[in-house]
Amino acid sequence: MITGHQSWSFKSKPVILGSSAVGGPFEAKGAIKEDFDILHQDIWVGQDSFEKAEKKMLEEACQLAIKKSNIKKDRIQFFVSGDLMNQITTSSFTARTLGIPYFGVFGACSSSMEGLALASLMVESKAAQYVISGTSSHNGSAEKQFRYPTEYGSQKPPTAQWTVTGAGAAVIGHEGQGPRVTSATIGKVIDMGISDPFNMGAAMAPAAVDTIEAHFRDFNIEPSYYDVIATGDLGKVGHKIASNLFEEHGFKMPSNIFTDCGKIIYEEDQPVFAGGSGCGCSAVVTYGHFLKRMLKGELKRILIVATGALMSPMSYQQKESIPSVAHAVSIEM
Amino acid sequence: MITGHQSWSFKSKPVILGSSAVGGPFEAKGAIKEDFDILHQDIWVGQDSFEKAEKKMLEEACQLAIKKSNIKKDRIQFFVSGDLMNQITTSSFTARTLGIPYFGVFGACSSSMEGLALASLMVESKAAQYVISGTSSHNGSAEKQFRYPTEYGSQKPPTAQWTVTGAGAAVIGHEGQGPRVTSATIGKVIDMGISDPFNMGAAMAPAAVDTIEAHFRDFNIEPSYYDVIATGDLGKVGHKIASNLFEEHGFKMPSNIFTDCGKIIYEEDQPVFAGGSGCGCSAVVTYGHFLKRMLKGELKRILIVATGALMSPMSYQQKESIPSVAHAVSIEM
Repeated sequence: MITGHQSWSFKSKPVILGSSAVGGPFEAKGAIKEDFDILHQDIWVGQDSFEKAEKKMLEEACQLAIKKSNIKKDRIQFFVSGDLMNQITTSSFTARTLGIPYFGVFGACSSSMEGLALASLMVESKAAQYVISGTSSHNGSAEKQFRYPTEYGSQKPPTAQWTVTGAGAAVIGHEGQGPRVTSATIGKVIDMGISDPFNMGAAMAPAAVDTIEAHFRDFNIEPSYYDVIATGDLGKVGHKIASNLFEEHGFKMPSNIFTDCGKIIYEEDQPVFAGGSGCGCSAVVTYGHFLKRMLKGELKRILIVATGALMSPMSYQQKESIPSVAHAVSIEM
Repeated sequence: MITGHQSWSFKSKPVILGSSAVGGPFEAKGAIKEDFDILHQDIWVGQDSFEKAEKKMLEEACQLAIKKSNIKKDRIQFFVSGDLMNQITTSSFTARTLGIPYFGVFGACSSSMEGLALASLMVESKAAQYVISGTSSHNGSAEKQFRYPTEYGSQKPPTAQWTVTGAGAAVIGHEGQGPRVTSATIGKVIDMGISDPFNMGAAMAPAAVDTIEAHFRDFNIEPSYYDVIATGDLGKVGHKIASNLFEEHGFKMPSNIFTDCGKIIYEEDQPVFAGGSGCGCSAVVTYGHFLKRMLKGELKRILIVATGALMSPMSYQQKESIPSVAHAVSIEM
């Protein structure tokens, strides 16, 4: 299964049997609103805290992915999930609801593809027949935790990103119909010294570039192998930096296939600064938008490179820089 | 590899090629002080914050485990690690230092065996030749984050536990000399409604019992198969509750083999309330104490059942109960 130094090639091509995307009111006005399964007009999702709202959305995403997979819940052996909340409580509380043996993961916004890579490894290696992987983020719960109380209405610079209110999940199985997970490249932690949490795109871009270059080195293929190569949530600022880094390295990345989930999710006229971010960003764009395009026959091969800024509010206060990581997973029809 | 519903049987028996245990000043006075590789007399480990001290200890544990394994660092393909800090910054910052492709995990104090199970899966399935798994906790950083500023000197009830200052790591490989990982049972999240963070033993005991019973159901063996069955950090209170639960369920658990890492690590006269806790607790007791006893020939088969309380300071403030999980890994000579 090992290919190169940090990649896995999945010979059995685990199948995504069902996937789901749940979004909030801001996502309901976004550029890919048609691709969501559930869109909430209420940012509280009928709950009395942002944290409970986020949990409710991840529960919905998991239940819907299971329903669409046509696999009975008690046949799904493991739940692999992570999120941005301290001690990933959204995932753990959802695991309690689901009652499925649980692996908590954390890679900040890279958790979506960390989870999908591990779920695929389990299916590929026959460590499980069916695994569900999910992740979520909520603008309100993330703002509260990582920034200021939202009531402050504090200003942000244009490099800031808008945390997606959304949850996505996928059920992976050893056989059946659907898009297939064909490989994964696991990222190293890269830190170029950026310490501004309002410029996470810049902090994460070098990690994305490192993982993408490792992917193509490990598999000895060209970027044009894919119809789309999408980073997780670099946003406009980070996307430009990543493009420039490829150029500097002499790595030919065609601009027509290289994109970013944080650039795709919202409309140009939505006030989202440099674009979307959060674990939910790459999850809903992948499990909603891209997989639907694959099922329609518009895309055949995609590489999702989820990016994570591995800081905490305390590491920022203690003047640490922002270590970043990116995990790539390829999905093919 | 699947055995039963939530267990893996590792046919290739991945080998623990090197392991390490690093402790702090309180552990240096404990009952297993002889089993540590490094003991720091300075709770700050020469750093200017508890968070940096914890990171320093995890770095030391990883570097030492790699050295003892006799495997060159650049041949180790993945680092699997988790800890108690918000956004598991200890692990992510250590991953930056190591430069090894990184899987962040979170299962609170169950992270030690979650990581070892995943690392063993990777080696078993030939997804890697060598993987390092580690975890840590620090009394000062955990108290700051989960309780009150230590300067308050706030009182605690006798059910409270003492977070271990320690880090442990293990290098797992496909062949070589050493104790072997033979199976793993992954836990479900169990929540019996306990909401008191000063009684985590009571919150976690039902999860430990659930995973242990699942392990013996899945493998159809008797507890006497093992020389030791040790939970992670139930402490005295949780250990008693777990023993009572086995009795209620009619599950025969011999009291001479059933123990708890949180009961083992400190001396009776140390003021640790109900015993040790924290990710570092099961890690140092397993990678220090138990593995050394195995290498001496005193133990042949052990089952480590690391337990995790999946709460956050905020979930407690929001009056949530404490969901808990336990992951079991068996190690045999």
